Amino acid sequence: MARTLDLAVIPGDGIGPEVVTEGLKVLSAVLPPDVKLETTEYDLGARRWHATGETLPDEELERLKAHDAILLGAVGDPSVPSGVLERGLLLKLRFAFDHYVNLRPSRLFPNTASPLAGSPEIDFVVVREGTEGPYVGNGGSMRTGTPAEVATEVSLNTAYGVERVVRDAFERAAARPAKKLTLVHKNNVLVHAGHLWKNTVDRVGREYPQVTTDYLHVDAATIFMVTQPQRFDVIVTDNLFGDILTDLAAAITGGIGLAASGNINPTGAFPSMFEPVHGSAPDIAGTGKADPTATVLSVALLLRHLGHAAEAARIEEAVVADLAARDVATARSTSAIGDALVARVAG
Amino acid sequence: MARTLDLAVIPGDGIGPEVVTEGLKVLSAVLPPDVKLETTEYDLGARRWHATGETLPDEELERLKAHDAILLGAVGDPSVPSGVLERGLLLKLRFAFDHYVNLRPSRLFPNTASPLAGSPEIDFVVVREGTEGPYVGNGGSMRTGTPAEVATEVSLNTAYGVERVVRDAFERAAARPAKKLTLVHKNNVLVHAGHLWKNTVDRVGREYPQVTTDYLHVDAATIFMVTQPQRFDVIVTDNLFGDILTDLAAAITGGIGLAASGNINPTGAFPSMFEPVHGSAPDIAGTGKADPTATVLSVALLLRHLGHAAEAARIEEAVVADLAARDVATARSTSAIGDALVARVAG
Ligand SMILES: CC(C)[C@H](C(=O)O)[C@@H](O)C(=O)O
Ligand SMILES: CC(C)[C@H](C(=O)O)[C@@H](O)C(=O)O
Repeated sequence: MARTLDLAVIPGDGIGPEVVTEGLKVLSAVLPPDVKLETTEYDLGARRWHATGETLPDEELERLKAHDAILLGAVGDPSVPSGVLERGLLLKLRFAFDHYVNLRPSRLFPNTASPLAGSPEIDFVVVREGTEGPYVGNGGSMRTGTPAEVATEVSLNTAYGVERVVRDAFERAAARPAKKLTLVHKNNVLVHAGHLWKNTVDRVGREYPQVTTDYLHVDAATIFMVTQPQRFDVIVTDNLFGDILTDLAAAITGGIGLAASGNINPTGAFPSMFEPVHGSAPDIAGTGKADPTATVLSVALLLRHLGHAAEAARIEEAVVADLAARDVATARSTSAIGDALVARVAG
Repeated sequence: MARTLDLAVIPGDGIGPEVVTEGLKVLSAVLPPDVKLETTEYDLGARRWHATGETLPDEELERLKAHDAILLGAVGDPSVPSGVLERGLLLKLRFAFDHYVNLRPSRLFPNTASPLAGSPEIDFVVVREGTEGPYVGNGGSMRTGTPAEVATEVSLNTAYGVERVVRDAFERAAARPAKKLTLVHKNNVLVHAGHLWKNTVDRVGREYPQVTTDYLHVDAATIFMVTQPQRFDVIVTDNLFGDILTDLAAAITGGIGLAASGNINPTGAFPSMFEPVHGSAPDIAGTGKADPTATVLSVALLLRHLGHAAEAARIEEAVVADLAARDVATARSTSAIGDALVARVAG
């Protein structure tokens, strides 16, 4: 009884294709023999935009819907105006496929340099809301370009949207040893959105008595992130605060070169999308210097989302073992790292 | 020809009164003999709110207007609901007195532990906009408390408001050795506000050819803050991003115990307000454990704002010398630190 994993692959720009190649190598190596991997490449990103002016045509979106999940390398290039691919492709995908859980684990791996002194233990997960808040594109400007210009950005927050991501975060917290959920917001200033978030966490939290909850303003959260990252277990937060905190979290755990992420629709109504947090790094594209580990870890998130928890764990263990065993003084090529991980997950 | 420095003092709650006492001691010691210091205390904060329900009555606001400047210790207490004093007192002051420059210098002082490995050189200034953005209180909710709730927060940005703070930041950058200005925003997502900020920096920048400018998304800025803080000289940014970045900046320079700030109206139309970034720390109030250094440094900002640049510099040099000479293993009391600084500025 053969099963199929039908994957859409968006290699994208810069180092995207290189890291995706390694991610797929590891994926093939870890899948049980009875699961057949089928991949369909989608040509999206800066190259496509330059060639056709398209970022994510609606027909492509339709075709993408048919897959079990999406793996994306990285999109973007300095030659594309800021915002075009971000909104026309990445955010369009998140909104069209209702990726309301933007999942970003942060873990300081062995042999990995944190910019923090003493390399504290860091192992937390940020559950960032992915479809609301200041990201909804609800803003405008008038008298644009004149001394009388007014520009607005509206953060939209709904009970519907907040509750579903808060529930997801409680589920994840309940499944972890520390069972702690921290809400991060700025409810002393953004009182309306803040109260909706706080009330939702308080209310849903009553269904999870085993989970300890606390609250931090976003400014205070950045302080703890660099002074006491051990205090975090699961963080649930708004789209914009999550964007900021997860980059900071990636930085303190050795950089975005190792940070994985999932844009998840937990209902399965649409395929979820998995991608490294790093960008397309055009400066090192083609040099074999890109570290594919973040993509490989994104593949692990993808597998866990599709119910292959054992395979996901094997990848994560392989990454830990690989980093622990590496000679930090010797740089390895993109494919050498991929090969080492293949050997570990297969072995 | 005697001159007067007419100061409004808001000691506030918790450790506020203790640190303000030391700040005023140092201020008295550093002022030239021909400047007479007059202080008027205002009873504002948690105590007053509990007693009368008032945060900042309009008559007090009127009286405050008459002073040359305001020194605030800290307000807040866990017994006051989140947001009441923040919006009713602190933000009300910023908005009423049009404190559009929220100035926050970040410097890693000698003998001060940064959570960053290797204690990199850190010496930058954040010019945070203080009267616009998501702080304007323009939001609301409907169907509040029901599963159909919608809550909004509107960020308002005007060419008027952005240009004046950008000009201030360019002036500050032009006066510093590195002459570098970094705009921090998120213009790939918050496109309308982001373009207003970016266009303003580009346009005003043409009047300051000696200042190098660059741009960072706020998420990337947090990465650089922990991996390469040396790259920053002057940062100009939006109210909310500035709130987040300056707490992070305080953390990497040894904690908010040393961070000073000014809420400045550069036109002089209203008195400016100076305060340490830290809060009222009720847990250590009255124990003599509070470090008054941030308040003393806020007094230096106050003096510089009022044209006493030499005295401001003397305070800052005293703080550097005091920190360099201290025995980090021995805790000093609040007043011992104040006395040490008095001795240095007077000596
Ligand atoms: C590229 C950009 C739109 C995106 C975001 O802001 O969400 C990125 O920073 C991220 O965190 O995935
Ligand atoms: C107390 C609060 C309203 C304030 C802010 O958000 O501006 C504080 O965090 C600060 O940075 O001065």
